[in-house]
Amino acid sequence: MTVSGNCHKIRTALILLDQQFEWIEVDTRKGETKTSEFLKINPNGKIPVLQLEDGTNIPESNAILYYLTRDTPLFSKDLLEQTRILEWLFFEQYSHEPFVAVNRWLMKYAADGRENSSVLENNHIKGNKAFSVMEDHLRGKNFFVGERLTIADIALYAYSHVAEDGGFSFDGFPNVRRWLENVRSFPKMISIPR
Amino acid sequence: MTVSGNCHKIRTALILLDQQFEWIEVDTRKGETKTSEFLKINPNGKIPVLQLEDGTNIPESNAILYYLTRDTPLFSKDLLEQTRILEWLFFEQYSHEPFVAVNRWLMKYAADGRENSSVLENNHIKGNKAFSVMEDHLRGKNFFVGERLTIADIALYAYSHVAEDGGFSFDGFPNVRRWLENVRSFPKMISIPR
Repeated sequence: MTVSGNCHKIRTALILLDQQFEWIEVDTRKGETKTSEFLKINPNGKIPVLQLEDGTNIPESNAILYYLTRDTPLFSKDLLEQTRILEWLFFEQYSHEPFVAVNRWLMKYAADGRENSSVLENNHIKGNKAFSVMEDHLRGKNFFVGERLTIADIALYAYSHVAEDGGFSFDGFPNVRRWLENVRSFPKMISIPR
Repeated sequence: MTVSGNCHKIRTALILLDQQFEWIEVDTRKGETKTSEFLKINPNGKIPVLQLEDGTNIPESNAILYYLTRDTPLFSKDLLEQTRILEWLFFEQYSHEPFVAVNRWLMKYAADGRENSSVLENNHIKGNKAFSVMEDHLRGKNFFVGERLTIADIALYAYSHVAEDGGFSFDGFPNVRRWLENVRSFPKMISIPR
């Protein structure tokens, strides 16, 4: 789904790697991830799924990023750097996406989403906590790991660069804002249409 | 913290790998992950953290599992198998832990946790959804990936084997129950004290 940050990660990696791909739009808002046909592709009923030419299906956006980039400069050959990249991928899925992505969803796409004020407020606090951890880490840095663009940046960029749609502001996070502009200006980098 | 599933993963991997380690107990219930001293170790204020002899700190339980096992039989040398293992690690952190671990926390450890009935009910539904995905995957299988014990099993075992403390039952999930018994009987495998 084009407006999904998790799907945006995969499109970004494929474009940066100059790989050919076919994009099949699946809309969660129309229940298209819950059909029996889709559940054969991913029993967990979530997008994105990477389908290989031999029919293999790979779900989980951050596992797909690993699959596509393990042997490229977007990952690393060094064990500690690899671990740091994975650290940020797990941080993204546990401490960032459930709050930053969900508030964007509620405020921009969900029917009656803005009525969930206690959920929005709680997610706002936790999303800002994630941005605060990112802010401290990015002091004096241009990228998350190894001072070059890796899938750690691609994963965190996905929902961060559209976080304002979920009511977040980067006024208090100048390092995050600088990093976002830095990633945005990377050759061939793409944004989610807004 | 001994009763934490995320910490249990690390202890399990270290024991299975015959690695020497020192266990430093940090109790979230006493606010010990929010002190300025601890935040220097992990700015995200979470346990576990793996501290290397040179002072390097590695947070995020599933990233630590990767660091400890990348070059051992508990991971894999094959790209697709590696990706499948990571898939289940991301599944664990996004679709399993936030519901299965949190309900155990609320029912067994948190003051007044049992009063959060709407949270408990929602997490119960989502936790059972995770067990249902695991149940289907484990049909005819003894382990999650490659028919041998990997960190995918270690990560999913951590909170699954104590899920009954959070009100979950495996009566409807015979494959998950068989897998739990299978993992439990693995040489040197440990359980969380109850």
